[in-house]
Amino acid sequence: MDARSLTLGGAALGVGATLLAWHSRVGRASSAQLVPSDLNQWLVEAQYAVRGPILDVANDFKRRLKAGEKLPFDELIYCNIGNPQSLGQKPLAFNREVLALVTNPALLESDKARALFAPDAVRRAEMYLKNIPNGLGAYTNSQGIEVIRQEVADFIERRDGFPADKDSIFLTDGASAGVRMLYQVMIDSGAGNDGMLVPIPQYPLYSALTTLFNANLVGYLLDEAQAWGVTVAQITSALTAARAKGIKVKAIVIINPGNPTGQCLSLDSMTEIVKLCARENLVLLADEVYQENVYDPSKEFISFKKLVRTMGAGTEAEQEAAKAVSLVSFHSTSKGFIGECGIRGGYFELDNLIPQVKEQLYKLASLTLCANTHGQITTGLMVNPPRKGEESFAEFEAQSGAILASLKRRANLVSTKLNELEGVSCNAVQGAMYAFPRIDLPDGALRKAREQGMEPDAYYCMAVLKNTGIVIVPGSGFKQAPGTFHFRTTFLPPEAKMESVMSRLAAYHTQFMAEHKDGKGEL
Amino acid sequence: MDARSLTLGGAALGVGATLLAWHSRVGRASSAQLVPSDLNQWLVEAQYAVRGPILDVANDFKRRLKAGEKLPFDELIYCNIGNPQSLGQKPLAFNREVLALVTNPALLESDKARALFAPDAVRRAEMYLKNIPNGLGAYTNSQGIEVIRQEVADFIERRDGFPADKDSIFLTDGASAGVRMLYQVMIDSGAGNDGMLVPIPQYPLYSALTTLFNANLVGYLLDEAQAWGVTVAQITSALTAARAKGIKVKAIVIINPGNPTGQCLSLDSMTEIVKLCARENLVLLADEVYQENVYDPSKEFISFKKLVRTMGAGTEAEQEAAKAVSLVSFHSTSKGFIGECGIRGGYFELDNLIPQVKEQLYKLASLTLCANTHGQITTGLMVNPPRKGEESFAEFEAQSGAILASLKRRANLVSTKLNELEGVSCNAVQGAMYAFPRIDLPDGALRKAREQGMEPDAYYCMAVLKNTGIVIVPGSGFKQAPGTFHFRTTFLPPEAKMESVMSRLAAYHTQFMAEHKDGKGEL
Repeated sequence: MDARSLTLGGAALGVGATLLAWHSRVGRASSAQLVPSDLNQWLVEAQYAVRGPILDVANDFKRRLKAGEKLPFDELIYCNIGNPQSLGQKPLAFNREVLALVTNPALLESDKARALFAPDAVRRAEMYLKNIPNGLGAYTNSQGIEVIRQEVADFIERRDGFPADKDSIFLTDGASAGVRMLYQVMIDSGAGNDGMLVPIPQYPLYSALTTLFNANLVGYLLDEAQAWGVTVAQITSALTAARAKGIKVKAIVIINPGNPTGQCLSLDSMTEIVKLCARENLVLLADEVYQENVYDPSKEFISFKKLVRTMGAGTEAEQEAAKAVSLVSFHSTSKGFIGECGIRGGYFELDNLIPQVKEQLYKLASLTLCANTHGQITTGLMVNPPRKGEESFAEFEAQSGAILASLKRRANLVSTKLNELEGVSCNAVQGAMYAFPRIDLPDGALRKAREQGMEPDAYYCMAVLKNTGIVIVPGSGFKQAPGTFHFRTTFLPPEAKMESVMSRLAAYHTQFMAEHKDGKGEL
Repeated sequence: MDARSLTLGGAALGVGATLLAWHSRVGRASSAQLVPSDLNQWLVEAQYAVRGPILDVANDFKRRLKAGEKLPFDELIYCNIGNPQSLGQKPLAFNREVLALVTNPALLESDKARALFAPDAVRRAEMYLKNIPNGLGAYTNSQGIEVIRQEVADFIERRDGFPADKDSIFLTDGASAGVRMLYQVMIDSGAGNDGMLVPIPQYPLYSALTTLFNANLVGYLLDEAQAWGVTVAQITSALTAARAKGIKVKAIVIINPGNPTGQCLSLDSMTEIVKLCARENLVLLADEVYQENVYDPSKEFISFKKLVRTMGAGTEAEQEAAKAVSLVSFHSTSKGFIGECGIRGGYFELDNLIPQVKEQLYKLASLTLCANTHGQITTGLMVNPPRKGEESFAEFEAQSGAILASLKRRANLVSTKLNELEGVSCNAVQGAMYAFPRIDLPDGALRKAREQGMEPDAYYCMAVLKNTGIVIVPGSGFKQAPGTFHFRTTFLPPEAKMESVMSRLAAYHTQFMAEHKDGKGEL
């Protein structure tokens, strides 16, 4: 596998099918004012598979089912995206109580109303309102509400054992908005020769933003044979090849726990990455949104911030690396056990960036004024849950514990069931919310896909959707080692249903493999 | 005045002072990973005056006051931004009740809790939850929740008398996010020769986004002598000059009612603009976020959508223009009488755009998944307020009526008081939330400003801030006809305080003028 073939930009890898499907959906110009070539060509080229053509087809099926049409399935099962509450996960009661109170502070004025809420929810709401005297309806500081940035800093300190600074934290409308901001600040789009090191497979946000801001995607392969581990050798090889082409590589994205791949990085691997970033002058963008989602008891989440601080007191070489490295870490209210995707909350922390980065981030944030206030409050609630001794603690522990335990059982179930399928192999899901199994597709499937101008795994996923109603995303949307095929599935359907979803998938998979052995399969 | 001098891009007009102040705040690089020249130079060049250096100084004063320092004033009065709830405006009770219920649906399960809310708020919350079965914690359609897009479409139909299509509406995190999306789709940043026609003076979002996405700012002057009217002659002159330079002008921004200028456009003027857009192949971007904020009884807000539909049944020339024009109109929950700035809600409606624009907008929206759900609900509440006969109607009418009546009185007060000041002239405020008076600054002030490398109006605003605590924004941040100076002030402080704010300003203004007549003034 030649890493150079991965450095050609967002459109270069396995996107033929989605590109094709995309173009087939857009009609002729009907207006005098613009023609398609007028549009932002970087945006036109950008791909975002998680909500791409497969989802459009799925939504069309959903409409047809609702209209009474008879299809091979009764309902759509959306396993395309980590959206837990869309599949029945309940929000945490404490969080929603506080949110309701700060939304409608009039409730705090009547004893009858206060009595309906947990006393610690009332106290928390009062704390927020005392510190946000204008309430949730006023624009906040563009960097985020100060008291919540302090809550985030305190959380980081508790988690890592090292202090954090509220003034290095930005509250954002979800982690994706934060990543977009960092990309927009760090990539000099006009220069056109910047590069971003991104894991292959990756979460498609990264490839899409790379294309959108006119940088080069420099992909480094994760090692599927080693539980999707990150190796410095792969990164170095990709980096060297990119530099040989004149690409100025600015930063590296590390997703830990991995999306779509579910691995939790080892301390050794992370240490090597930090040293490499220091040595090679790369900003480290740490996507740590799944930090609460670790299922393998032999693994634990360690933040890059903690590691860098620990290295700062380590060997001389470690100290040097820790001193040199620039780190940005991202977190989100959408994952973990709170799963508040729709509310759009999150933060990023800057560590050892030049001050101009913060200045420019602040200006960029101020253009759209501030992150939404409910998302900011939800971020505070995520990082500052009820403590032992508080009234909501037991309920909070029970709810969050049940969610995580169930996710863990489902993670195991999914990888086990996938590994039982012919031609499918799936690494154990150590963390995050996804399995990313490899499929060895039969020749008939490859041929059929080619005939239809689709990527083979997109062909497979479309067949699964059309026959089972299960929505999964082709590996080509995440990029993958050439010649390999995968798909990503969440394991977020309710536990009671998960087993039947896997059986339905297994039954159709067997049929698909049989039908395509002799090349007779039809989509 | 030569319109060509306005077409040189975002950095060309009256931004010396802010640029200087900006650069003076950024220190030396402290990290090995990036140097300032690595950053996105388009972002570095972009200016956003509303939250620029003046606000930084103001916030510093605020901290010093809080720390007990003695300053020439006891409090900061933030008149720099249209942020009504930060200055004491109360949110509408009905809206906050519905929001609290949909945030914490458990409240709907107990009779005791239901009894605390208005029955129509309960019904509305139940309607939303029925149509959003996963609640507010799930990602929504990237275009926005369908039932709310339908509410928006119904609102437009009631307002304009012509039908609207929910599928042409995108819900956004405030109008600014919507404008950013349209800019990012329509400007081909890589081409580098696109142009955007923007009024001078303008809301700085437009100049900032123009620079950020590598387009040319093509400014057309509003006619201050004619109540800040838009004239086709000025637009044509700017357009011709820009085209002579090879600039491909894509769109024109019309802000109505005007920001910072407060004018309400006449039907005749709007008709001419639509014809011009059709003739000159310009997408019409209609910023209509102040549509509820009209104070002049002889004026009324007419949407461009309504006008275009009306023209569609008019003379042959009108029909032709209406058929050709591509229109995008923006609205926000932050303005009007609801003033829910922090919640970040809004929408835009596409009318007669090529389908590729919607496709690309959808993809762009999907990169950050969806607009925040509380903002989406708040947009629904804005466009679908309590109706006659519903339980909350009387309270809603009283609250919203009182807010608008008070804004109207304050609009009149501010322009009257400003016109009493030496060297100040201010057009009557027909609408929006701002006055934009012209100041004839004495020679001493011009000289002092020049000595300090500041724009003269920035010098004036800084002096006002340092002596009164009143935060106003220099006209140079909005751009203005060369050789003229202005400032923008909101009239959002509470009515009881507004008179004393104006007196404080008047007293210092008199002192400033006297001190600078002989050139002895000091900042």
